[in-house]
Amino acid sequence: MTVGTTMRGVVIKGGRRIAVQEYMVPVPRAGQVLLEMQASGLCGSDLRAIYRPENPKSEGAEGYRGVIAGHEPCGRIAAIGPDVSPEWIVNDRVVVYHIHGCGSCRECRAGRFISCHSETGREAYGWQRDGGHSDYILASATDLVRLLEPLSYIDGSVIACGLGTAYAATLRAQITGLDTVLVTGMGPVGLGAALLAEKEGAKVLGLEVDPVRRKAAEELGIQTLDGSSPTIKDTIAKLTDGYGPSVAIDCSGHAGARLTCLEVAREWARVVFVGEGGSVTFDVSPLVIHKSLTIYGSWVCSISQMEDLVEKLVRWKLFPQKVVSHVFSVEEAEKAYALFDSGNSGKVVIASPSEAKRWHEESH
Amino acid sequence: MTVGTTMRGVVIKGGRRIAVQEYMVPVPRAGQVLLEMQASGLCGSDLRAIYRPENPKSEGAEGYRGVIAGHEPCGRIAAIGPDVSPEWIVNDRVVVYHIHGCGSCRECRAGRFISCHSETGREAYGWQRDGGHSDYILASATDLVRLLEPLSYIDGSVIACGLGTAYAATLRAQITGLDTVLVTGMGPVGLGAALLAEKEGAKVLGLEVDPVRRKAAEELGIQTLDGSSPTIKDTIAKLTDGYGPSVAIDCSGHAGARLTCLEVAREWARVVFVGEGGSVTFDVSPLVIHKSLTIYGSWVCSISQMEDLVEKLVRWKLFPQKVVSHVFSVEEAEKAYALFDSGNSGKVVIASPSEAKRWHEESH
Amino acid sequence: MTVGTTMRGVVIKGGRRIAVQEYMVPVPRAGQVLLEMQASGLCGSDLRAIYRPENPKSEGAEGYRGVIAGHEPCGRIAAIGPDVSPEWIVNDRVVVYHIHGCGSCRECRAGRFISCHSETGREAYGWQRDGGHSDYILASATDLVRLLEPLSYIDGSVIACGLGTAYAATLRAQITGLDTVLVTGMGPVGLGAALLAEKEGAKVLGLEVDPVRRKAAEELGIQTLDGSSPTIKDTIAKLTDGYGPSVAIDCSGHAGARLTCLEVAREWARVVFVGEGGSVTFDVSPLVIHKSLTIYGSWVCSISQMEDLVEKLVRWKLFPQKVVSHVFSVEEAEKAYALFDSGNSGKVVIASPSEAKRWHEESH
Amino acid sequence: MTVGTTMRGVVIKGGRRIAVQEYMVPVPRAGQVLLEMQASGLCGSDLRAIYRPENPKSEGAEGYRGVIAGHEPCGRIAAIGPDVSPEWIVNDRVVVYHIHGCGSCRECRAGRFISCHSETGREAYGWQRDGGHSDYILASATDLVRLLEPLSYIDGSVIACGLGTAYAATLRAQITGLDTVLVTGMGPVGLGAALLAEKEGAKVLGLEVDPVRRKAAEELGIQTLDGSSPTIKDTIAKLTDGYGPSVAIDCSGHAGARLTCLEVAREWARVVFVGEGGSVTFDVSPLVIHKSLTIYGSWVCSISQMEDLVEKLVRWKLFPQKVVSHVFSVEEAEKAYALFDSGNSGKVVIASPSEAKRWHEESH
Repeated sequence: MTVGTTMRGVVIKGGRRIAVQEYMVPVPRAGQVLLEMQASGLCGSDLRAIYRPENPKSEGAEGYRGVIAGHEPCGRIAAIGPDVSPEWIVNDRVVVYHIHGCGSCRECRAGRFISCHSETGREAYGWQRDGGHSDYILASATDLVRLLEPLSYIDGSVIACGLGTAYAATLRAQITGLDTVLVTGMGPVGLGAALLAEKEGAKVLGLEVDPVRRKAAEELGIQTLDGSSPTIKDTIAKLTDGYGPSVAIDCSGHAGARLTCLEVAREWARVVFVGEGGSVTFDVSPLVIHKSLTIYGSWVCSISQMEDLVEKLVRWKLFPQKVVSHVFSVEEAEKAYALFDSGNSGKVVIASPSEAKRWHEESH
Repeated sequence: MTVGTTMRGVVIKGGRRIAVQEYMVPVPRAGQVLLEMQASGLCGSDLRAIYRPENPKSEGAEGYRGVIAGHEPCGRIAAIGPDVSPEWIVNDRVVVYHIHGCGSCRECRAGRFISCHSETGREAYGWQRDGGHSDYILASATDLVRLLEPLSYIDGSVIACGLGTAYAATLRAQITGLDTVLVTGMGPVGLGAALLAEKEGAKVLGLEVDPVRRKAAEELGIQTLDGSSPTIKDTIAKLTDGYGPSVAIDCSGHAGARLTCLEVAREWARVVFVGEGGSVTFDVSPLVIHKSLTIYGSWVCSISQMEDLVEKLVRWKLFPQKVVSHVFSVEEAEKAYALFDSGNSGKVVIASPSEAKRWHEESH
Repeated sequence: MTVGTTMRGVVIKGGRRIAVQEYMVPVPRAGQVLLEMQASGLCGSDLRAIYRPENPKSEGAEGYRGVIAGHEPCGRIAAIGPDVSPEWIVNDRVVVYHIHGCGSCRECRAGRFISCHSETGREAYGWQRDGGHSDYILASATDLVRLLEPLSYIDGSVIACGLGTAYAATLRAQITGLDTVLVTGMGPVGLGAALLAEKEGAKVLGLEVDPVRRKAAEELGIQTLDGSSPTIKDTIAKLTDGYGPSVAIDCSGHAGARLTCLEVAREWARVVFVGEGGSVTFDVSPLVIHKSLTIYGSWVCSISQMEDLVEKLVRWKLFPQKVVSHVFSVEEAEKAYALFDSGNSGKVVIASPSEAKRWHEESH
Repeated sequence: MTVGTTMRGVVIKGGRRIAVQEYMVPVPRAGQVLLEMQASGLCGSDLRAIYRPENPKSEGAEGYRGVIAGHEPCGRIAAIGPDVSPEWIVNDRVVVYHIHGCGSCRECRAGRFISCHSETGREAYGWQRDGGHSDYILASATDLVRLLEPLSYIDGSVIACGLGTAYAATLRAQITGLDTVLVTGMGPVGLGAALLAEKEGAKVLGLEVDPVRRKAAEELGIQTLDGSSPTIKDTIAKLTDGYGPSVAIDCSGHAGARLTCLEVAREWARVVFVGEGGSVTFDVSPLVIHKSLTIYGSWVCSISQMEDLVEKLVRWKLFPQKVVSHVFSVEEAEKAYALFDSGNSGKVVIASPSEAKRWHEESH
């Protein structure tokens, strides 16, 4: 593969400003590979923590160090540094797990880089080290997940953060075909959780107050109820064997939706909180003790789980690019962020010309 | 409902002899109900332990006391004795859980009547107390499971023992849509396990050496491989993500099939032994330790699980009568047992005239 | 055993009034036994729902029907009605599980009578049917748990509700010797949870704001911290491997203590809410999602679990009467309730003269 | 720390021959550290696969490449190569996890290097890369586990393989204080499993036919029965609540002991096979199906589990050097292997002069 010498990269400036800049293509050091970027998703956390604030934080797990943005990268290996496992060769198609961990702490050793305890070793792509909104990206070989055929690069970018997070949430709840599952909040993570729960065998219901998102979910085949309906609890009970869902997954991050999950859940149900932010308040005896509920907090998936997810998607023929509504080039990053910020889109991805072309042809 | 005064009942004499005799219709005592029988299945254990032996055992859990046979009864409440919970009323449609337990030992209190520790309190219907091959049956109210619409009485008789056993096996393995499941032995329990595992979300493969059973399984939509093929292990691996099944359930009771389950299973797989009889021999290090397998023994289901199964079948629209190939009247019991004993049938059921009529109309 | 013809029984009148009345000794009907009462505990729920309110509720699960009070009965079989399993004979020592269930619903069939769905079949002893503050009590044979030697009747009364509840909470958390366990609220259930968690292998810390209760816990060998200390979180971390407890069980029912459980819990910890009443409010991302916590609601134990607990107590040589501070006769019921209501006691029990004598001799 | 230029290393020649040779002290490359060796245990697998065979295998997971032997190394960091996480500094005390994995396959990413799928990336210390019977060892930083105070280097060498394996077996069985545990085979792994199961809360029984090993186990406080006694099953039942153990762990690798585990196990018990080699044969219905057993295969522990074990040992004040009976110097390796091979010893360790001195002083 021929590798260029310069590349473009997208930097988020805060206050809803975007810059596309030119960089030297970096050379992989020990343990690293250089990827030719093919697809790089935009995530709600980018909007919340970097794009919208006038002065984004620069410290901590959500600190932005002015690097090339994009923490959902997917591409093809263009060059390989020293001391990389021979399993990786040029042209391999790979997803980059969104966070690099120190590799030595207990959490990293279990593949949970997100929880890496190291002050210096933990770096999120697109936040503390260069990310995927570019023509090339340096990735640590330990962060690579093989993208199996026939998954596309855009499929891979959806897997890299959002779908992995949804997957971990469904695993926490140990969903099977015995379950009826309520998903509250039909954003990208909610859509993913609903699609995965169905493939895991369950009967799935979505709940969403926004009519645009509700329509998008319905178009993906997910029966989605209007969260603002006054009779919603009765409707849910009726659609879930009369008893309420055996699993409820909140992807909205809203206190009200979390409470609804607890209220409608069946005895012995499992409730998963995965949507970030805010709080929740509930009466403990009637909702949690007398119904013997279990509440799980679920963060993102581990890298082992992401590898497992790729295998399952191939078997299920579930192609996550179906949650993508718009694809842009690196040059169009400003437009991409503005659209995603408006709320009038599904998942938005920045892609290479060839990948964008493939997607447009397949989608229309 | 009008209740007759006499009834017919089928007694198994051993040595492949059957007698149909006349009895007085019994009157329910405290805690009992009288059921008008509608469907009563034949089970392989009846053949093995009572029908075929010249002198069936009369003692122990499999001792036959010369009672009316049939331990898979399903019918309609015709009369109710004193001290029965008001939840049961005349005309209720019910499945009889196949074993009555003392109700006081630890196992009974968890709903596992099969494991009842009481010498005198434990009685299996059709073995130690009168069973379902009759016009009426006395059942303890504690053994009743409500048959929900639109399940038929024949559906209920399949649930009463065989499908419940298959269900318990799938629950032991905690099957989800993440799994690929191999079922060895496509008799009634194997068919049930395969159909249930699919509804629980898994990709399912059957394995069977008998071509007639293989064909029957395929007609029910279960991809079923020829267990005698020399390349069977490669074929299984290829059809299960390349790694082998994550769950294997032996319903055959054969040592060879059990060994196959252990051999083809993926690392960290769960293997369930539910098929009765015989033994198994295996090399422990390569098959079980180095693959980190889990092997579960699974007996029949608990009564709570049976109640749960009924609810799930309704949601799944899975009607277990699809494993039934022949339906006979009480008078034809001899013919029914002879056919079932020949191996040239699927599940065989004795049914009331109206239930038999319904089944014949629906099936043809 | 000679059975008297009249007996005394304690009725709670509301507004902190108690009456001791005379009754005819009842005769056991089908499925029932008559117990000679030996020990009958007072429970916090009796104070909250019946003793303190001027007009206690008469409907629902906590409705009081003016029956003989006391839902923690333990005694000896004095007479046996018809149709009782032969495993029970006169003079058997038994604990009465505190709630009678219909026996036919799904919850009852799993031994969880507390969750019985029947409107009419569910009756709590001492609330909707006569309880244990008496010389005799009628109990359904299905509600009996054998009291193994060398457990005393007072041990049994502690098991009947409070310790069973504590046991279920420790089971929900799957406590092992790998765990460090924080118990918040050192009332009878908290003391029980702490003592059981220690026997299950864990290192245990108590947390309690009341100095009297703290002292009582320390006297039972439970290291108990002052919940009002400003440096309490650091102290807890230091005493739990530096990371915080891997299990936290709230037995206080207070919002603040529940929040403390979530705050100090280690990553991947399990938090159990078993203390009744009130609410809880928390920030979901930092406390539950990013720490991957699991929160369990735990109600009382099932009857199978109670039977299991008795077996374990014998092996562990853990005698629950150690949480009892005062024993009274039936005649002294008014004094007993007044003391228990004052908060200046541990567990308070009403006992027969012989059991009271034994306890006084052993305790002093 | 001053590092020498030459070092001694022990090579196993097969046919019970040992050579002590001189080597240049190696220089750590990227991602590696050099350790000053302090303690290096001998393991039964060294005897079986390398020491005793005239021509040890050179290929596969148990292939010996003529390297410095010893796969249970524990020492102190003497020098650090490039690109090593800053958490490691000179003088840190560390255990080396006994197998280096590729770090990129699914198993490695979950910390299970033993199951590494890479043909080239997987290397066991002392088998395919230089091990611990030496003055220095090169170790990959990813294989290091911090040795917490007050654990000794000899404690660490016991942890590095054998105790980790025992720990994983106890985790598979989810042992708690509710359990009675039978351990069959009181070699180093069996002793470790018994000691750990006790700390996890269980009542523990050992079973061993060899009187020397039985005595050693008893001296460590483990009640150990004579496996050759004709009444052994009754004795076990009597000592385990009358029902048999709820957990049985075979550490012997013998078919007979495995069968005993299945025979004496209580209903719903968990049986773990961790002792390597040989086979097992059993009747499936009475032993596994009707008792609803679970059988787990358990290999060695993951590196995350080893890190966890270190933390727990400190809390429990359990010092694994108590299973060590003899300590030798590198020069005395021949004597060390001959003794260990004779069966007349406990665990045997090669240690530095200072560590050997400390051990001798503490032990006598």
